[in-house]
Amino acid sequence: MTEKTYRRAGKGQIKRFAKLQLKKYREKEGLFLAEGLRTTLELIAHLPDEGCLTALFVEPDQLHNIPDRKRLRDKIFLIDPAEGHRLSGTSTAQGVIGVFCQLTGTASFENEKRSLVIALDNVQDPGNVGTIVRTAAWFGVSAIVCGPGTADRYNPKAVRAGAGSVFCVRHYGTGNLRQELEQMRQRGYSICCSSLDGTDFREYDKWPDRMVLVIGNEANGVKKEIMEIADRHVAIPHGQAEPGVESLNAAVSAAILMARLVL
Amino acid sequence: MTEKTYRRAGKGQIKRFAKLQLKKYREKEGLFLAEGLRTTLELIAHLPDEGCLTALFVEPDQLHNIPDRKRLRDKIFLIDPAEGHRLSGTSTAQGVIGVFCQLTGTASFENEKRSLVIALDNVQDPGNVGTIVRTAAWFGVSAIVCGPGTADRYNPKAVRAGAGSVFCVRHYGTGNLRQELEQMRQRGYSICCSSLDGTDFREYDKWPDRMVLVIGNEANGVKKEIMEIADRHVAIPHGQAEPGVESLNAAVSAAILMARLVL
Repeated sequence: MTEKTYRRAGKGQIKRFAKLQLKKYREKEGLFLAEGLRTTLELIAHLPDEGCLTALFVEPDQLHNIPDRKRLRDKIFLIDPAEGHRLSGTSTAQGVIGVFCQLTGTASFENEKRSLVIALDNVQDPGNVGTIVRTAAWFGVSAIVCGPGTADRYNPKAVRAGAGSVFCVRHYGTGNLRQELEQMRQRGYSICCSSLDGTDFREYDKWPDRMVLVIGNEANGVKKEIMEIADRHVAIPHGQAEPGVESLNAAVSAAILMARLVL
Repeated sequence: MTEKTYRRAGKGQIKRFAKLQLKKYREKEGLFLAEGLRTTLELIAHLPDEGCLTALFVEPDQLHNIPDRKRLRDKIFLIDPAEGHRLSGTSTAQGVIGVFCQLTGTASFENEKRSLVIALDNVQDPGNVGTIVRTAAWFGVSAIVCGPGTADRYNPKAVRAGAGSVFCVRHYGTGNLRQELEQMRQRGYSICCSSLDGTDFREYDKWPDRMVLVIGNEANGVKKEIMEIADRHVAIPHGQAEPGVESLNAAVSAAILMARLVL
């Protein structure tokens, strides 16, 4: 199969999809961008269905790196480096940019007898959000609920950090995290906030079967209004010596706690 | 104190320190850059001694955010946004860029009876390296040894991810990681590689008192030549369901294993 088999990208297409760098347009279109060969291939490997891949923009010298290029031919559009730069706004895309559909509608998970949900309260760094989505997919958590101020799970940096996991775990946003958590509590979920001032997590032998673990903002932790409705606050202790750092990274804290709760 | 009290940065200074974006110049000068108010203040809070701060470049409207500005007056130089951009090469510096000394010489740690060392084998992402340094500082590990291909701990992105921890934990590079590990083994260290195909870490009740935990490359894991000299290979199991993702992020794996080993 030669290059001639693939269509060239159109100007209108580039213009339209470049806007997906902004959350406003991602939400309006229900689409998102994946930058770079690896991220794009990981997402393609985890597509809920083929319709979720909208378009795949590829520089000709990268075509041979797309194993499914024959099957995906109708979705592939050839671009030049300037168009790649325009689509991704970064230099990390390296000639491959995918456009995918956001998942809508969240299948119910609340009948699960054992259920761990991760709540993100104003986690602002997209890399942290993507890493938490990836870790949550690994540990098979029931869902991730994202409160106001939390970086968009479909931000290109979050998608990259997520390594294809954005299709592999339920996640949804809420405009009022406290209310959402209060409602989950009425449905039998225990609320646990990660906090530097919390109880050493080793002090708990047994964890509730249905639990929400709340991870807070990188600098300020979980908001007071959420802390005060929690059933417990937990901390990850440091090593024996006084640590040089004030805290762990938010995605690292989330991962250590998830490992403790799931394994 | 007014703006007039502070000196303007000189052209030669900007030119010289902007080069610190490249590892070659960082090594030649023994210096490194910290971008952004938060990272810079964290490093200042953890300075081994005051001489380790070489210069602090600040846009005038950011001066009020430097709590120690009076004490640090001799180190502070005023810049304009174009100079800030030139120094940092990114838009994340937000008007504050610090220049610090790299630490040289590593105090011996091998007499410690209990000692966990982290070895990085070709961990390429500077964000991962910085996050691992931060986590290692939190858990009080003895040292971090960085093999060939591993991102520079003094790369600006690693410094940012490290949140000031680069001064708080011993770390050094080696041109031959296998040899380094073999020598440590002769001095009583057990070598443990993190590996997707390793033994579920929950199967070990007891860990050696002196151990090196090897973390491998993001895509390919630990190199074969290191794997084959290891005393054990350990894996972090996934949750009950088949996970959607192939692996955890390297810094996340390192953190979960460190928590298991230290706590």
